Amino acid sequence: MNSKPIDLDSIHSPADIRSMSIDELTQLAAEMRTALMRKLSARGGHVGPNLGMVEAIIALHYVFDTPTDKIVFDVSHQTYPHKMLTGRMQAFTDPAHYGDVTGFTAPEESPEYDLFSIGHTSTSLALASGIAKARDIRGGHENVVAVIGDASLGGGEAFEGLNYGSTLGTNFIVVVNDNDMSIAENHGGIYADLRLLRNSNGTAEPNLFRSFGYGYRYVHYGNNLRSLIEAFRAVKDIDHPVVVHINTMKGLGLPVAEADKEKFHYNGPFDLKTGASLHEAPAGEQAEDYTDVFANHILDRMATNPLITVLTAGTPGAVGFPPERRREAGRRFIDVGIAEQMAVGMTAGLAKEGVRPVFAVVSTFLQRAYDQLSQDVAINGQPAVFEVFHTGVFGMNDETHLGFFDIAMISNIPGINFLAPTCRQEFLAMTDWAIKQTSQPVVVRVPGGAVVDDASCAIAEDYSKPSYSVTRQGKGIALIGAGNFYYRMAEAADILKEKGYEPTLINPRCLSALDTETLDSLRDYDIVITAEDGIVDGGFGQKVAAYLGEARTKVLALGLPKEFPNRYRADEMIKMCGLEPSQIADAAIAASAR
Amino acid sequence: MNSKPIDLDSIHSPADIRSMSIDELTQLAAEMRTALMRKLSARGGHVGPNLGMVEAIIALHYVFDTPTDKIVFDVSHQTYPHKMLTGRMQAFTDPAHYGDVTGFTAPEESPEYDLFSIGHTSTSLALASGIAKARDIRGGHENVVAVIGDASLGGGEAFEGLNYGSTLGTNFIVVVNDNDMSIAENHGGIYADLRLLRNSNGTAEPNLFRSFGYGYRYVHYGNNLRSLIEAFRAVKDIDHPVVVHINTMKGLGLPVAEADKEKFHYNGPFDLKTGASLHEAPAGEQAEDYTDVFANHILDRMATNPLITVLTAGTPGAVGFPPERRREAGRRFIDVGIAEQMAVGMTAGLAKEGVRPVFAVVSTFLQRAYDQLSQDVAINGQPAVFEVFHTGVFGMNDETHLGFFDIAMISNIPGINFLAPTCRQEFLAMTDWAIKQTSQPVVVRVPGGAVVDDASCAIAEDYSKPSYSVTRQGKGIALIGAGNFYYRMAEAADILKEKGYEPTLINPRCLSALDTETLDSLRDYDIVITAEDGIVDGGFGQKVAAYLGEARTKVLALGLPKEFPNRYRADEMIKMCGLEPSQIADAAIAASAR
Repeated sequence: MNSKPIDLDSIHSPADIRSMSIDELTQLAAEMRTALMRKLSARGGHVGPNLGMVEAIIALHYVFDTPTDKIVFDVSHQTYPHKMLTGRMQAFTDPAHYGDVTGFTAPEESPEYDLFSIGHTSTSLALASGIAKARDIRGGHENVVAVIGDASLGGGEAFEGLNYGSTLGTNFIVVVNDNDMSIAENHGGIYADLRLLRNSNGTAEPNLFRSFGYGYRYVHYGNNLRSLIEAFRAVKDIDHPVVVHINTMKGLGLPVAEADKEKFHYNGPFDLKTGASLHEAPAGEQAEDYTDVFANHILDRMATNPLITVLTAGTPGAVGFPPERRREAGRRFIDVGIAEQMAVGMTAGLAKEGVRPVFAVVSTFLQRAYDQLSQDVAINGQPAVFEVFHTGVFGMNDETHLGFFDIAMISNIPGINFLAPTCRQEFLAMTDWAIKQTSQPVVVRVPGGAVVDDASCAIAEDYSKPSYSVTRQGKGIALIGAGNFYYRMAEAADILKEKGYEPTLINPRCLSALDTETLDSLRDYDIVITAEDGIVDGGFGQKVAAYLGEARTKVLALGLPKEFPNRYRADEMIKMCGLEPSQIADAAIAASAR
Repeated sequence: MNSKPIDLDSIHSPADIRSMSIDELTQLAAEMRTALMRKLSARGGHVGPNLGMVEAIIALHYVFDTPTDKIVFDVSHQTYPHKMLTGRMQAFTDPAHYGDVTGFTAPEESPEYDLFSIGHTSTSLALASGIAKARDIRGGHENVVAVIGDASLGGGEAFEGLNYGSTLGTNFIVVVNDNDMSIAENHGGIYADLRLLRNSNGTAEPNLFRSFGYGYRYVHYGNNLRSLIEAFRAVKDIDHPVVVHINTMKGLGLPVAEADKEKFHYNGPFDLKTGASLHEAPAGEQAEDYTDVFANHILDRMATNPLITVLTAGTPGAVGFPPERRREAGRRFIDVGIAEQMAVGMTAGLAKEGVRPVFAVVSTFLQRAYDQLSQDVAINGQPAVFEVFHTGVFGMNDETHLGFFDIAMISNIPGINFLAPTCRQEFLAMTDWAIKQTSQPVVVRVPGGAVVDDASCAIAEDYSKPSYSVTRQGKGIALIGAGNFYYRMAEAADILKEKGYEPTLINPRCLSALDTETLDSLRDYDIVITAEDGIVDGGFGQKVAAYLGEARTKVLALGLPKEFPNRYRADEMIKMCGLEPSQIADAAIAASAR
């Protein structure tokens, strides 16, 4: 490289790169990549997606007249280079400012360049279709660009958007970032077609994009600035919908990320040379989490029960199934790609025919299959099993990935038995029972936070009917702690005991129906307090409050706020919600004294 | 036709037709079609879909070894011929038994032949993929057939299923019933490709199905038994996924239905010759419903506000937009096809750019876009407007189309203002306000049942914050009636008044947040009763009960049960739920006396 060094910090907006030569842009890409690797290795983040898109994002901002021209990035976990070029360079060059930006497009950081807060996949085509249609209604002329990865393309909203977008009849540019990878490998028939297109330099038929009605252009060297710029220039100001299919390399420039694309899709801090993760306990001493507990247990059960089949929708690692465990599970581990609707529908078909499907899914992503839970599974009473991970206040804390809406969403669908285990022992017992029974759909809410061992936990033979476990019988004050918040209640009970009260302590086990016999026994209590690791609205505690609405007992339903907090701290959130054991005890005393 | 008449009532299972000649099958089709037309004209139902599929369904049961071979019908509103051949003929030949069967596949009618209760579109590929995978896991060899219409193909779950299904690697037969129609016309890029395939006798490229990885076979005469039987025989026992694309005629055999495919997609009783609807009031005296109220009003507003844009997801008629109104709205009426996710995502894009999108949607179908409401709209605070139709106990009563889950679904998503108007005047005022404001997403829950005029309804200037309308100030007893159930509460208040009580009567207007000031004023009441036209679980009343959980007042939350009742009677349901005004008054008296 003969170009002289570029001062990254002198780039404040895309206008600052538009007068650069190709050589300078190439130099810019190299320096951005170096800065990215330095930050990613120090702080962690989406490694592969960002390293693979450095050139494409430079070329987009170079060719298109952003922010007048509009770009919507799908998932938006590949937008670190975009942030670098749009006024946020310091967050990537200065370690003291690494924390200034989120990992996704964020309108609050850059209202001009970041159109939406995005974190779920497959939305860019629908969002950009709206932008393009609005432009046409207003009589504007700007370019509208939707950027979407090959994996995201497999989600229902993306297909719906691809289908509708081609009928816009005006400027609509879809950049398909094809790195031949999802988080793990891709799954689905379209990926064979994408491969065919890559292998034929875009000339083969059938052509998925043409079959959806798009003009089509292929860029084989999707990490080459000259090729990209040429392609984007060719479609700039085009008067009809077109797909630009670019072939990129996930993790480009970082050998360990190129070699292990799944591990380096998203990674914590790591050693740039070896790829070894930093800040981790030595092998053998690593903290076990609930994904491990689940995966090890279910693999054990699968070994003796040939009907158990585990499904994921594109997130095998997030539910405990890295490659080696997938190999162990064999053909009874099914990855349907980023297609939660398909996964849930498929569980109904599998269960109908006697197989025991277990869909392991991240809480926030199950939102994408509400209707399928209701229609395909619940109305049909199919005994599918769902294990919902990364739930509650201890789950992911980006506003787009919150794990505390699932109680309100699932527990109000008729016919679904929604179980909330408190500890490892109960989690495994409920999972075993859910798989054994064949009478109803069962959702097991995997506890958030660290694994809790509680050998004293009362295990039931049968969880088909709501049957609360009264773990401490007292009087006057009842504390009902759901799921992993049970232990907060147990601590509050201890505090109350010390202060001379005799609280009753209850693990409700089930969040979707009420054990009316137990609740009736509380009608003369002074106060019943519920706590759940989810929003209060639409949740378990409100059901209890309504059931006891005509009783003399007061009811206080504790939980999380109906909000989308962004990058909150769990400990602060818990305190704000009055969920510290001492706060709960104080509330109980205040209510019983009144 | 030379064949002798066939006694339809002698057909009890598909085995009874498998020894027939092609001529006899053709005669059978003609007689089935005649019986269908007689029943459809007398009772109403899905006219076009069933008339178009008579031959294909005969051919499927003739060629495939049902019920060992499995058929999953998408939407299943085209399965009347299937029911005729699978033990339920009498429900189509004997007027006294017309009511014996539902309009959809129904396992409770025929566990062998009807695999699932289905009513939403786009699910058959996912369900059948599960059936096929279960077969492979169990080591079975039966054929698995998914039948799907061209319109249903445009839904996200169908695309996800199409994408995954082709990777099964074993027998998986997808019959695409292409009649070139949705309920109304189709919308989406794939429909140009389907047309290309039809016009080229299946030979053209690009080929959507091949691009998804399927083998492909085209049947141009999709209402010709010989062609269909030949095609199905050719794919029977095939060892890989294949699409059989059949070109059928919606409404075939009934001239009025062939001529007006949209009107005769679903119709009430009608005159076979003229197509005129029966049991309808003469022109000019027809009962106006809320879809008319909405459409006329919004068209009026669109005439003066060039930014208002109405969207539908494939159900224009169900939200008041038959063809003539669509023409009037012009390009600012957008039908995205059966793609609710796309529609909701698109509203976010439109709103972002200053257009005022109004997505008019049927309650049960909005379930398909829960995640898009949350992510694309709510997290981004986009001021999109949603008008939710066919809500509550007076909505559709098939278990797959219930309209009373939307309160629990929508009101617990942060950041969405969910308004429940009580009458025409309030409905229009809230709609106007929702369009005018640009600060938040607003859902207007269009009241179920007959249009209510209430000139005395208190209209607010601003609905951005919850502000209950106290329409009668009393003491001791408070009745809070949400949406169209407000008037039940008003009647109950009248009864109570007659009996000497002085109830306070409240229209809460908003179901997603609490007017705590008003609620605080009720803390010393004996009893607060809420009523809402939705399930109690996760609903408005439970929020009130929880808020007042520590107050001395008793709270009774009335509403519908968390169940999937099938073809219930609204009057019986209301009584069962204690929602008759006299029942409400009795409950209030009982509680205030205690």
